[in-house]
Amino acid sequence: MKVTKEQSELNRQALLDAAGRLFKQHGIDGVGVADICKAAGLTHGALYKHFADKQDLAAQAFAHSFRRGFDKTTRPKGGAAPTLATYLDPYLSRRVRDDHGAGCPVVTAACDTGRQSEAVSRSYTAGFLELRDGLQAVLDPDGTDPARATLAVAALIGAMSISRGVVKTDPKLADDVLRLVRRGIEQLAPD
Amino acid sequence: MKVTKEQSELNRQALLDAAGRLFKQHGIDGVGVADICKAAGLTHGALYKHFADKQDLAAQAFAHSFRRGFDKTTRPKGGAAPTLATYLDPYLSRRVRDDHGAGCPVVTAACDTGRQSEAVSRSYTAGFLELRDGLQAVLDPDGTDPARATLAVAALIGAMSISRGVVKTDPKLADDVLRLVRRGIEQLAPD
Repeated sequence: MKVTKEQSELNRQALLDAAGRLFKQHGIDGVGVADICKAAGLTHGALYKHFADKQDLAAQAFAHSFRRGFDKTTRPKGGAAPTLATYLDPYLSRRVRDDHGAGCPVVTAACDTGRQSEAVSRSYTAGFLELRDGLQAVLDPDGTDPARATLAVAALIGAMSISRGVVKTDPKLADDVLRLVRRGIEQLAPD
Repeated sequence: MKVTKEQSELNRQALLDAAGRLFKQHGIDGVGVADICKAAGLTHGALYKHFADKQDLAAQAFAHSFRRGFDKTTRPKGGAAPTLATYLDPYLSRRVRDDHGAGCPVVTAACDTGRQSEAVSRSYTAGFLELRDGLQAVLDPDGTDPARATLAVAALIGAMSISRGVVKTDPKLADDVLRLVRRGIEQLAPD
């Protein structure tokens, strides 16, 4: 049965959505392409029509998930310019902490990326740079201290990892980590 | 053949060493107990004599790897008290960045822990608190700003993740991230 161009694009989006969520949830090595096809309700044939292999899918799913989340995050309702809170609210969110399939992949797929191919690394690098540029604009608008925004992105990644790592043992500590890292980053902001 | 008490303890250490390295390298979900037995040169029987299951092994391997690395790191030669550099040198090291089996598991197994059992979370929590206490002593000796040491630990974790994530695409950026996070943490230190 011939698939229309529109249907083919819908299939591609469904595969990217399913892959983005499952890769974040279980790690790229923790999910097979069969699981992704099943979650998207599609066949292996449909997947290989759009993606060369699992690493290609992972790289594209990363970019797709980053783009969607980042645009939603950094374009506040009413068209106001992003503030520091625009970043801290979603990136240090308890909801994201408790839903491993959610969140920005620059943060939630960070540890995973080093084990993957150059294609995944390229997607990761582009996302990292865009997030850092965004934080630079609110933390260091004059560009006098390049360490500040890099420290902030690193701390967002670490805060989510720690909070997820400790929450089964000590939920209060898990919340404290998100709160303290928020305060620490706020203290980096210009007065 | 009966195994002496001494040999049994050597076997246990060999399993912890192999597990610690392989779990950091591939993630806990990315390694089977068969791989660990093989790397330690031991049988499944030897493994299950010492550990209830893979999660128990992961929790104990985490604690073992943390203990060994942390004691080595924080007890500088000559018995001097640790300084900020005592932590930053190994935790932001390019050698660790390029060897996924190396490094402190609080940093290099961070993203992995949220997906594991409560036993692994308990080991993670203990390691995180000890590392944070160590950084607190050098960054905020009077205990006036609890955000500072938490921010620093989070940034160490994130810096390593980002640096590993981008190094295949942009080795210079990977080095810059380690350098800038170092400078950012140094700027948190009291004058």
